[in-house]
Amino acid sequence: MSKLRFTISMSLDGFVAGPSQSVENPLGIGGERLHEWVVPLAVWRAPHGLKGGEVNESTQVVEEALANIGATVMGRNMFGGHPGPWDAGKPWNGWWGANPPFHHPVFVLTHHAREALKLEGGTTFTFVTDGIEAALGAARRAAGGKDVSLAGGANAARQYLAAGLVDEMEINLAPTLLGSGERLFDGLGDDLHGLELVRTIAAPKVTHLKFARR
Amino acid sequence: MSKLRFTISMSLDGFVAGPSQSVENPLGIGGERLHEWVVPLAVWRAPHGLKGGEVNESTQVVEEALANIGATVMGRNMFGGHPGPWDAGKPWNGWWGANPPFHHPVFVLTHHAREALKLEGGTTFTFVTDGIEAALGAARRAAGGKDVSLAGGANAARQYLAAGLVDEMEINLAPTLLGSGERLFDGLGDDLHGLELVRTIAAPKVTHLKFARR
Repeated sequence: MSKLRFTISMSLDGFVAGPSQSVENPLGIGGERLHEWVVPLAVWRAPHGLKGGEVNESTQVVEEALANIGATVMGRNMFGGHPGPWDAGKPWNGWWGANPPFHHPVFVLTHHAREALKLEGGTTFTFVTDGIEAALGAARRAAGGKDVSLAGGANAARQYLAAGLVDEMEINLAPTLLGSGERLFDGLGDDLHGLELVRTIAAPKVTHLKFARR
Repeated sequence: MSKLRFTISMSLDGFVAGPSQSVENPLGIGGERLHEWVVPLAVWRAPHGLKGGEVNESTQVVEEALANIGATVMGRNMFGGHPGPWDAGKPWNGWWGANPPFHHPVFVLTHHAREALKLEGGTTFTFVTDGIEAALGAARRAAGGKDVSLAGGANAARQYLAAGLVDEMEINLAPTLLGSGERLFDGLGDDLHGLELVRTIAAPKVTHLKFARR
């Protein structure tokens, strides 16, 4: 069966976003420091239309995260916009513009029903109101035998982790402190639900910790 | 000048001890899971009088932590016993018995004055009531040109980190969650005070993250 795979950057003190997340600053204060390791990489620059860039130990991790993904699930906070019902007049259509980088079906967890949103380049956002298992089931069916990516945010990730539904988790540990913000593991207790460390890759500015079921 | 060096095991969610620490359970509930990586090692067993054991990627990290140390500083919580004034009749003499494993001068931070305690094997505990800088200065003088080890606990470590006095920090990251307990970096804000990741060593059950000043 296709796997549910999750990749996230986290600070040494456990934060995946800084404080005061907003539409203007979706990563929160200081949150961009979690991603400093990836921005210089050629493998990150190319899909953003930028030439050149570095190749290092992180390259294979980024390539792996992007490979063999047929669909994505994400939480409402990751899709963005203010919480609550969608604006009828001009609804929020995500952070990613007219041609989002997914190029496959994306399933958004929400409490507020909404028609599917078909954008350029093969990305369709489908809004799922009946829970994480329904969203994952729909994503698996849409993935056509490939894996499903869990794109976050932290709240949605915690729900899938707590339900034992995550098959692979890659933590990109940034050697920095944020001090406050949103913690990935808050409320998960002391249980990784069967996930074990299976691979560690050391890069200059990040440590990649891959967890999977043995 | 001799360096102040600090080594600690931490969970993926940032805890260095589990909840409900006590004299009976100094690591707190689940805290022993932070140390599962070290107990099977020959380099850990030998000083505890045990033969055999494993040699793996962690061995050099443990050897390095023990090498070239001339004195130790620690907090009152690490030295142990209940908080507050020392019992006049039968004061707490530490966790380590008649012949502690330090074999050098140890300086204990406390608010409660007490005569120095000389035990077997070269370990003397000196109780310092005038703060972390005084304790470090005394330890440096006693170290005879060697480095000083910061033995914890978390509260004392945080004070030295916040004051920018730690020269090297080795985080042994255990790939497990504790969910609650004592966090190493709580209250430190977003500042590692000049410490940067300088080395990552991947072992089967732990990832060693070494920080130092560049």
